[in-house]
Amino acid sequence: MSREAWGRWGDQDERGALNHIGADAVRRAATLVRTGQVVTLAQPLSPRTPVPKHRAGIQHFMGRDGGDYAAGARRPGGFQFAEDTVVLPLHIGTHIDALCHAWCDDCLYNGFPGQGTRSTSGALRCGIDKMGPIVTRGVLLDLVRLHGAPLGPHASIGRAELMRAAEAASVAIEPGDAVLIRTGWQESQAGVSDVSFDEEPGIDVEAGLWLAEAGVAMVGADNFAIEAIPFPTGTVFPVHQRLIRDFGIPLLEGLVLQPLAAHDRGGFLFVAAPLPVVGGTGSPLNPVAVL
Amino acid sequence: MSREAWGRWGDQDERGALNHIGADAVRRAATLVRTGQVVTLAQPLSPRTPVPKHRAGIQHFMGRDGGDYAAGARRPGGFQFAEDTVVLPLHIGTHIDALCHAWCDDCLYNGFPGQGTRSTSGALRCGIDKMGPIVTRGVLLDLVRLHGAPLGPHASIGRAELMRAAEAASVAIEPGDAVLIRTGWQESQAGVSDVSFDEEPGIDVEAGLWLAEAGVAMVGADNFAIEAIPFPTGTVFPVHQRLIRDFGIPLLEGLVLQPLAAHDRGGFLFVAAPLPVVGGTGSPLNPVAVL
Amino acid sequence: MSREAWGRWGDQDERGALNHIGADAVRRAATLVRTGQVVTLAQPLSPRTPVPKHRAGIQHFMGRDGGDYAAGARRPGGFQFAEDTVVLPLHIGTHIDALCHAWCDDCLYNGFPGQGTRSTSGALRCGIDKMGPIVTRGVLLDLVRLHGAPLGPHASIGRAELMRAAEAASVAIEPGDAVLIRTGWQESQAGVSDVSFDEEPGIDVEAGLWLAEAGVAMVGADNFAIEAIPFPTGTVFPVHQRLIRDFGIPLLEGLVLQPLAAHDRGGFLFVAAPLPVVGGTGSPLNPVAVL
Amino acid sequence: MSREAWGRWGDQDERGALNHIGADAVRRAATLVRTGQVVTLAQPLSPRTPVPKHRAGIQHFMGRDGGDYAAGARRPGGFQFAEDTVVLPLHIGTHIDALCHAWCDDCLYNGFPGQGTRSTSGALRCGIDKMGPIVTRGVLLDLVRLHGAPLGPHASIGRAELMRAAEAASVAIEPGDAVLIRTGWQESQAGVSDVSFDEEPGIDVEAGLWLAEAGVAMVGADNFAIEAIPFPTGTVFPVHQRLIRDFGIPLLEGLVLQPLAAHDRGGFLFVAAPLPVVGGTGSPLNPVAVL
Repeated sequence: MSREAWGRWGDQDERGALNHIGADAVRRAATLVRTGQVVTLAQPLSPRTPVPKHRAGIQHFMGRDGGDYAAGARRPGGFQFAEDTVVLPLHIGTHIDALCHAWCDDCLYNGFPGQGTRSTSGALRCGIDKMGPIVTRGVLLDLVRLHGAPLGPHASIGRAELMRAAEAASVAIEPGDAVLIRTGWQESQAGVSDVSFDEEPGIDVEAGLWLAEAGVAMVGADNFAIEAIPFPTGTVFPVHQRLIRDFGIPLLEGLVLQPLAAHDRGGFLFVAAPLPVVGGTGSPLNPVAVL
Repeated sequence: MSREAWGRWGDQDERGALNHIGADAVRRAATLVRTGQVVTLAQPLSPRTPVPKHRAGIQHFMGRDGGDYAAGARRPGGFQFAEDTVVLPLHIGTHIDALCHAWCDDCLYNGFPGQGTRSTSGALRCGIDKMGPIVTRGVLLDLVRLHGAPLGPHASIGRAELMRAAEAASVAIEPGDAVLIRTGWQESQAGVSDVSFDEEPGIDVEAGLWLAEAGVAMVGADNFAIEAIPFPTGTVFPVHQRLIRDFGIPLLEGLVLQPLAAHDRGGFLFVAAPLPVVGGTGSPLNPVAVL
Repeated sequence: MSREAWGRWGDQDERGALNHIGADAVRRAATLVRTGQVVTLAQPLSPRTPVPKHRAGIQHFMGRDGGDYAAGARRPGGFQFAEDTVVLPLHIGTHIDALCHAWCDDCLYNGFPGQGTRSTSGALRCGIDKMGPIVTRGVLLDLVRLHGAPLGPHASIGRAELMRAAEAASVAIEPGDAVLIRTGWQESQAGVSDVSFDEEPGIDVEAGLWLAEAGVAMVGADNFAIEAIPFPTGTVFPVHQRLIRDFGIPLLEGLVLQPLAAHDRGGFLFVAAPLPVVGGTGSPLNPVAVL
Repeated sequence: MSREAWGRWGDQDERGALNHIGADAVRRAATLVRTGQVVTLAQPLSPRTPVPKHRAGIQHFMGRDGGDYAAGARRPGGFQFAEDTVVLPLHIGTHIDALCHAWCDDCLYNGFPGQGTRSTSGALRCGIDKMGPIVTRGVLLDLVRLHGAPLGPHASIGRAELMRAAEAASVAIEPGDAVLIRTGWQESQAGVSDVSFDEEPGIDVEAGLWLAEAGVAMVGADNFAIEAIPFPTGTVFPVHQRLIRDFGIPLLEGLVLQPLAAHDRGGFLFVAAPLPVVGGTGSPLNPVAVL
């Protein structure tokens, strides 16, 4: 079976599982704030942010800076300022995949044609500009804690393991939750000069379906592609295809979860607000846990 | 007098007035959530996002898209995906100014040297990567409601007027607040093909100082530079110089406030999380009001 | 009739009319050098280089510069250097169109499929990297001299007029020639703050066919699109379609011809060498007349 | 002694040794054309063009392509076209260094201040836009032929060796010559997946001075930095400092010389025309030998 969520929120819907987040869920999430601590879940963005070999990294250019004034530049009224520009791949560092990012059989989530995403226009349907900010309960499923160490590069996380992690956190997954999965990959790559994007620990399709069927609004992880790599034989990004395309669930990749994990909080207020790039297929962002 | 906040949070501090937001302020802000409505305050980002004439706009390039598959591209396993890159000025659309963005006399906020911001490195001090997410009470000061119409292009908003707007909203400004000022400029430019950046309604220095002295953490507005333009004779961006440099208050420009104003809420949970671009002087972002 | 040159140089040919330039033509062109003067035919490239409204201009970013050293940067051995990066549209300023730039009915020059030009790869066929340097006789057809003034914005130059210009220059067009047409557009736009790309003087289809049938290797002009704009009713870029696609003739646009015209030389050694951007659809370049 | 060429062509001169190329030299160069063969000396430009690890490579983005039409795009009149943009570092692949590229003691060639090169403006003095096209005699000094093999990565080429190579080619270096040095580095890197920029065979300072004192207009080579790397102890880019800064000699790096060498021609017509990027510190280009 496939396409489970198509049509569920109308045949023009472009927000998918984010529709699971009703006003009630937002209100309940806000009540989870206890200590008032604010934790960022984002990697720093710079030319050093790791990227796969076939992709280009960030470039950061200063259009005006302190060097100009040191070299003698003067502005009216003694005003001094600096400004800059980035060449920014939208799937880099900590970023969220829009529902137009991955598909198959020429059809996106909800049946929108893949050929509506073009060089001239970007994505006409399911672009990141349609996503809007995500405010809901965040739930941390901490596989590192469960295993006592970061998972190995080939580890495939199944449904039972996710359930155990939820149990360990004393949380039951609910519709509208933003589920964050800590595999330990991000922290295991710290200081590695040549980060490999050829393999990673991540969830398998069954684990993904368990989350999807529970009605989660979003799935995030501290690896680079949510799912286990290498893929099971004969499949390519099967979790992407099922979650993004069939269930309309955006994936949030490259999270930094170690500092959050240190707080030992099962549920918290989670906010993630992508840049509304018109027709964009994703967005780097700075997700926040409020404890 | 000047440099009022220098040293206040230690001579190595790079977060300025955001230090006013303690855990208590975060907790109180969370309790303001009532209806659970989530309102984005960001403009869409695209090549059509208006920019001043001397600046370049956004460029959005698809590196892979649906057209490639329509033209015959095939990926292993039938997987299809699209990805893209933006050339993104960091001060465009709805964006926040880092504390390294504006200064004078070769000194940034807290006395850091302006020449620490260079082509090769970006800002060594007070970069946007030092800011972190902002979670606090948002307060809307609605000048459009006060005046019954968007302010004219030359309107300079003084202290008394801000106070009246606060009174009309039944809120008292408190330390750590994120104050959002609606001038009507953004909505008055909707549909204008050639937006002018030569003049705008905005606050004057006295109004800015009133906010600064009240201990606000951040000042935002729906215009492009917070302050009234043209500047008072003999000054250039005086509000930037006083608030950013002397008080360490980040400015959030280009907000979309009309939809928020329609909800008639004086105080609300406000979240704004800039991209942590290492050494960046600002960041486009998607600020959120949770009602 | 159409597609006149398809197959003429083999069904795998990607250089089109440049094949008209044999070694003999190169040798003869070299003998035209008399005074030894070297004249550049290129516009300067900068953020001020005019572009049509729907296109972005150049961005020029310094990655390292003298300001960094003024601000205190030191390199080993006292070495100082500067480097920079441009965001460069390939059809800007003085540039040449590759044979993959314009087509119709999904077929490029020589029948190559248009869908071989994709986001992921650029042009697999007829890219600018297949063009190679052009060294041949240049011939200036000076309509400004013929008319005594720059042509008006709507002027359409016909076959007879081109013939008169050739006669006035005492040159007969020969196979392999690079024909440069001076309309006066470029010089009439000097100092104009808002250059219009909605109309320009240029050749009509009959004039283009006359050149094509004479076996020219390349056609250049000092306007932005070679051909008269607005187009004849019911047609869109008809000269592009006929010359590029059907005859395999590259077009060189945005030339600066006034200084060359001052030398009053009918024929000269002409050299134009595009950047070999793999899969590129064109290239800015610096064409040279050696007198 | 240093600064040998400062003031030689006036204190406002920004073209340096290119002034050695008089009209006579151009005329004589044109008479060297015999076979009419045209040989490009440029590497292809693509994301695969090798760059040192600390630098970013080229990015090539299609703004409109055949995939768009395959996906259903239609233009008026059935016209189809493709266009593209590159993010192009100016010192990549086959490129020429402007006289503002390298200096020391805060002074460029001819005494212009280094701080005239800024983020906001690029180089006010000695930018690549001041260089103009180079048309002169090219002379190939073929060390590979002399040694019977490409030089090893550490080989330092001295004055005597250059003299032997000139003798082997039966040419005497003359004022205004463009001297091209084949070390074999470029061809030895063909097919290498991870090209090293840590070492290369190249000339030493004495060899450079021999060329400079002979009045050459330009020095090129098939390596990435002309000079031997690692540098002699206690020096950093000494050939760059002497030739560019003191003699005003532009350096042309990354040449492809193997095909030219196969023709066994000591002297030939050489044309190299950089993009006139205003304030640019160099330019990729497509240099040409006409045989």
